[in-house]
Amino acid sequence: MTNITKQADSQDQCEGECDSCKITEDCNDQRKKQFEEQQRLKLQLGRIKHKIAIISGKGGVGKSTVTSNLAMAFAMQGHKNKVGVLDADIHGPCIPKMLGLKGKMFVGGPGGLLFPVTGKLGIKVASMDFLLPNDEAPVIWRGPLKMRAIQQFISDVTWGELDYLFIDLPPGTGDEPLSVAQLIPDLDGVVIVTMPSEVSQAVVKKAVTFAKQIGVPIIGIVENMSGFICPDCGAHLNIFKTGGGKKIAEDLSVPYLGSIPIDPNVCNDSDNGVPFITEKETSASKAFQEIVEKIIEFLALHNGN
Amino acid sequence: MTNITKQADSQDQCEGECDSCKITEDCNDQRKKQFEEQQRLKLQLGRIKHKIAIISGKGGVGKSTVTSNLAMAFAMQGHKNKVGVLDADIHGPCIPKMLGLKGKMFVGGPGGLLFPVTGKLGIKVASMDFLLPNDEAPVIWRGPLKMRAIQQFISDVTWGELDYLFIDLPPGTGDEPLSVAQLIPDLDGVVIVTMPSEVSQAVVKKAVTFAKQIGVPIIGIVENMSGFICPDCGAHLNIFKTGGGKKIAEDLSVPYLGSIPIDPNVCNDSDNGVPFITEKETSASKAFQEIVEKIIEFLALHNGN
Repeated sequence: MTNITKQADSQDQCEGECDSCKITEDCNDQRKKQFEEQQRLKLQLGRIKHKIAIISGKGGVGKSTVTSNLAMAFAMQGHKNKVGVLDADIHGPCIPKMLGLKGKMFVGGPGGLLFPVTGKLGIKVASMDFLLPNDEAPVIWRGPLKMRAIQQFISDVTWGELDYLFIDLPPGTGDEPLSVAQLIPDLDGVVIVTMPSEVSQAVVKKAVTFAKQIGVPIIGIVENMSGFICPDCGAHLNIFKTGGGKKIAEDLSVPYLGSIPIDPNVCNDSDNGVPFITEKETSASKAFQEIVEKIIEFLALHNGN
Repeated sequence: MTNITKQADSQDQCEGECDSCKITEDCNDQRKKQFEEQQRLKLQLGRIKHKIAIISGKGGVGKSTVTSNLAMAFAMQGHKNKVGVLDADIHGPCIPKMLGLKGKMFVGGPGGLLFPVTGKLGIKVASMDFLLPNDEAPVIWRGPLKMRAIQQFISDVTWGELDYLFIDLPPGTGDEPLSVAQLIPDLDGVVIVTMPSEVSQAVVKKAVTFAKQIGVPIIGIVENMSGFICPDCGAHLNIFKTGGGKKIAEDLSVPYLGSIPIDPNVCNDSDNGVPFITEKETSASKAFQEIVEKIIEFLALHNGN
């Protein structure tokens, strides 16, 4: 928005600068509504210290698992009631299930606002899932409607004061990540999740270039499903190979945050709505804790706590 | 299109019925271009006997693996040079890698047409990947541009006479699947791929409802990554649980096509551009062959041939 303060005498002269306009009270122009939405968005975002998006090139690499565990890890580390999760996957929202909030619905507040659904340790969640009658209901929407939904999840949900907002994005480099980058200009950065298969590796490079091109800082790459230890015989098996994430991080000069091994408990935990980070003694949760520390370091370095 | 044949004397009277219009030769209206594109699309589709889309609710369930193997399986069974694959995943095109065509580029033909890239057994492939300079290049596009690309992949690629066209769609129920359903009104049906985790199961239900709502026949559900046999000790491990796909198919009264076990060879094969179906003695390829037979049965039952 420019600094020009146009004082319109009639709607014909409108330049969308409602805050300095004489006739704003009586105005019913569409631009006034947009201006108000923009203001609400800014106000909401201004009360959230850190905004971190979780992206991937390919789907199914465990992005939502990483998001849920990040939220839980930060909440456990002195940020109770101060962590939020925005599930920006409109077509396949998984966050509610993973945080044990499946079946909950949004509750409306004053002025058309929505209260986020609150989970363990006061984690606040907004997700399309809280608006759908059941699991079968698909959201058959094209891009513009999705952008609008994401905007409302930021501006119309009563997030309040948060230390961290984690945004779980659907795979790819289309409407949803573009919308989030546009709506949240002060994103701290993105965490990029991949898995070890070469096919995934090829696509994760696109996610890195995407972040660079739209000018969002890259916090680092996480390799999920990295190796598997047979619970019966202890053999270490590389179902999806391993190590590719680190190589790509080096090739593209991007920080490498760490790898999370495949652990059948992780799948069970996700299905049961318990992030695996809460079980401290597993190899997955130990690996994850290191990732969390690197993210904290990044934030401290880049914008002071 | 209606049956009214308006014979326009000037562009003001245009109703977009170019085939019956008097002044079409001298016309430079945008609608003429659209009409011609529509005609080309119809012509191309008219030369393809069966069109099958592969969809999923969630990403990373192995949709592209299933698509590549279907293409190879049908090509192996008497349809050499008569199988095509349209990779409609604009952001994360994986089909070229899986069919050993990584690094190939489209070659232009007469009249702005593109020759598909041809793989083993004459499988013809169109993919965004054949237009990108390298793996790092992301396609940062919103919905309308993606629809346009998919349309061109159908109308401007010289598919020729095909027995089968398999269309690999990105996850979700947004722009790409909607576009394909709109552009190919005579789709034989969709194969829906899922994996056993409950989180995936919840999302696959949306894909089923999506297909029902837009009126596309459901050929059936495939459960991928269903159980794992430790190559060291032979223990049968359910990394991502198992059996959920069948249950959902029953719950939603949709045919169940079968399950494909996790096999580290599948991951290696995909990375090496060799569909696993070519190795007949593995448990994965045996399971897949049963799925292929059920699809053939479906097609025979629903539209002869």
